[in-house]
Order: sequence, then C-alpha cells, then structure tokens
Amino acid sequence: MEPITSRANARLKAARKLQAKRNRLTAGLFLAEGEDIVEEALSEGILPAETFVAAGRPPDDGLIARLARGGPVHVVDDELVAELGSLGHPARVICVFKVEDLPSRDAATADLGVHLHRVIDPGNVGTVVRAAGALGPAFLSLSAGCSDPLSAKGVRASMGAVFRVPIEHGELPEAGPARVALVAGAELPLWGIDLRPATVFVVGAERLGLPDEIVAACEHVAAVPQALGADSLNAASAATVALYEAVRQRSAAG
Amino acid sequence: MEPITSRANARLKAARKLQAKRNRLTAGLFLAEGEDIVEEALSEGILPAETFVAAGRPPDDGLIARLARGGPVHVVDDELVAELGSLGHPARVICVFKVEDLPSRDAATADLGVHLHRVIDPGNVGTVVRAAGALGPAFLSLSAGCSDPLSAKGVRASMGAVFRVPIEHGELPEAGPARVALVAGAELPLWGIDLRPATVFVVGAERLGLPDEIVAACEHVAAVPQALGADSLNAASAATVALYEAVRQRSAAG
Repeated sequence: MEPITSRANARLKAARKLQAKRNRLTAGLFLAEGEDIVEEALSEGILPAETFVAAGRPPDDGLIARLARGGPVHVVDDELVAELGSLGHPARVICVFKVEDLPSRDAATADLGVHLHRVIDPGNVGTVVRAAGALGPAFLSLSAGCSDPLSAKGVRASMGAVFRVPIEHGELPEAGPARVALVAGAELPLWGIDLRPATVFVVGAERLGLPDEIVAACEHVAAVPQALGADSLNAASAATVALYEAVRQRSAAG
Repeated sequence: MEPITSRANARLKAARKLQAKRNRLTAGLFLAEGEDIVEEALSEGILPAETFVAAGRPPDDGLIARLARGGPVHVVDDELVAELGSLGHPARVICVFKVEDLPSRDAATADLGVHLHRVIDPGNVGTVVRAAGALGPAFLSLSAGCSDPLSAKGVRASMGAVFRVPIEHGELPEAGPARVALVAGAELPLWGIDLRPATVFVVGAERLGLPDEIVAACEHVAAVPQALGADSLNAASAATVALYEAVRQRSAAG
C-alpha cells in the first residue's frame, strides 16, 4: 500500500478538521493519538472509525490489525501524521472515534460523580476524567464553558479514561445524587460528610471558584483541609481527593 | 529611568543564563515570573536579589517598591522580559531569587513529607510542591534524576509553594519518618496504615513506578484504591491523595 503523501488528501483533511471543537460537534467524531490511548479504547470494546499510521514508524502489526476491525487504516507520511496530532514527539498512530460509542451513565457509575463548573483548562478537565477512571467507577458532568474533554489535550490528560468514564453536559445535575460543593476555606472537612449515599462533587475553576447560587443549590459544602493562607488545590486535585474520600468511606475497611 | 533595550545587557544576560539548570546550580539563583508567584515569596518574607519589570506593562507601584527592598529593579523592554520568561502570555515581572533563602525542614514540616523517585516531569514535581504547601506543612525530598523544582515550569506548577515547602535532595530518606511506598495495585489501602506518626510517602514516576529495592527498604507499602485494570494515578495525584489521608487521620475529627 502506497502511503498518503499529500496534505490535500480528503481523508486527512477531514480528520484535521476534528482539531477544532465546532467540527467535532458537527461530525460527532474526535481524535485520539498514541498507542497507549487507543489501546484503552480497544480494552473497552470501542473501535475507531478510521486509523492513520505513520509510514516510517508504524505501531506493531497486531495493533494495526485490531484497529482495522473498526474501519479503514491509512498509512501516511510521518510529517502528515505529526501535523494531524498535537504532540511534540509525534504518535505512531492517530484514530478517529465516534462520540456516540462513548459510555453513558449506568448503574455502576450512577452513584459517584464530579460536576465541573466552567473549568476552562483542558489539562485539568482531562485529569479529572482520569481520576474518575482510576478511583471510580464514576461519571463526569460538565457545565457550559468547560473545556472540551475530547480535545487533543483533554484526551491525552485523561490517559484514555474518556473511553471509560461517562461524560454528560449540562448545568448542575438536578435530581439524583446529593451535591457536595467543594469550596476553598469551607468549614466542614470532606470527612465530616457522609459520602456513602449517591454523591456528585461540584467543583469550580481555580481562582474563580463556584458562584454563590451554585453553592446554595448544593446539599452540602465541604473543604479540603489546607494550611491557613495556603493556596487552594486546583480543580483536578480537589476532585481527586474528594473521589478518594468517597471510595474510602464506601470501602468495608474505611 | 531609561528601560534596558539591549539583549546584550549584562544583567539580562546573567538572568537568562538561569534558564539552564546547571547555571542555577552554579549561581545558587533561580527565576520566578508573574505577580502571583513573587507575591508568594514576599508573603514568606523572601526578597528577590534582582527584579526585571516590563516597561510597557509594569506591575503596580506598590509591588515594585516591595520588591526593590531586596535588590535592584530593572525596567526592561517588554520583548526582553518575554524572552527571559517562559510564558506564552508574558509576565509583567520576573525576579531572581537566592536558593539559600528557601526554607529548610523544621519542627513544623518534619513529620510529613513526600519523597519523589526519578520523577522527570517538571509539572508533576511542581504539582507535588503545591500539594505539600496546600495540605501540609510538609517537606519534599527529591532523588537524583528528578526534574528541578526551580525550573520555570516547576516554579509555575508549584504556584509559588517553592517559597514555603522545604525541598531536600537525596536518595530515600534514611533516619526519621516512617517510609510509606505508594505502589499501584498494592493490597493495603492508604487508610489501612496509621499515618499519625511521622511519615514520608515514597512515590515513583508514572509507568516506571518504584524499583523493588526502594519498596523493600520502606516500612509500609500502600495503594490508592483503583478500579481493576484502571490506570494508576500519576505521581502528583497519588502524592496529593496520600497527604490528604495523613491530614485526615491527624485531624481531631478524622
């Protein structure tokens, strides 16, 4: 098979458009780059719609064969793969996945979650997805104004947990799990709240925090402990600690 | 005062050299950029040896006056300040600080700490410094091969906590706090270990983890809980959760 050597190739052009959020929304598709990340998709039974591999440094044949079950595999000049991706050290493989193949909230993930309010940093959003995957099962809810978890940086920071963690979009979840607002300097520590019933942690952006009306709508307000005058943890660290505390309380040994 | 307009200015050249780790080591100096970060230094009573402010967009006069107590303030063309710094959106102020002015381990910070083993990512190292500042008082110990916490990225990721958290260099701390190795998939959860006595958490780099001989030398081995097959948390998240658990156990309410 001759590698694709033209930037103008229609498949490459269509894939490159997915670098922009509005095109991801329109197409219902997103990119995932790197062998470790696409392996995460495969391990969840999610196949790519399309795959691009670097002609000069392809991944191993077994991986290519497994990816080919989902859709066409294109062999592409290394520079064009680098241009499709976002990494300084370019990936050997970049896949296009369908948003509709991602998981939805189910019985296993319904009783623990994190709602992010206007967290614009893609690394922070991705890190929360990763924490939900590592400490959960747990779901993620994103308000308007949050960074897209399916951006290149978001998928990368999640380490592929976007294929495992249900992600919803909307303002503060209304019915369902008790909402626990995490607020810097709040009086009650996390461990002072019973997190064994269904719980969703509500976390704002660093510096800005949560607006008063969001905090007021929550059933509980909790702080992570911090030395007087110390900076608040960032959104991702706060969510990670909160998920840990819920897991600890729910564990038989906790 | 006429701004410095030449790249070749001797003070600027000397400061730019501090972008390289070996020059920081030789000079015993490092750079901190941004008003929020240098405010952290001032709030710890640490003054800069030298300050560079952007001629076209200086910080407020009060901050300049406080920084001037430490050493000379140079007004510099904006582009030259941008070149001295590391940020895409350049800082208004960049200061040179002395390594010897940073805190050492004392009674307040001696009984809780994190030892990082060959963690090469500067953002991860800085995030652990930040977590130690937010959840501590706690100290940080860095093995050979760790990223320099006084790099531009390290100082930035710490959000200025490098001015508050004692940082030591050396292999596994020998005498003193009980060493708790954090190992992905270990059987005993963090909350199964009594962390109220003096404790130092030992954390390896993502993927590589800790070598067997380091784990064997530790008094305890603990895992953060994770769903079967899920990725391990990264070094910074693991250290953050561990510090949280120690604080929780030590709190009267815990």
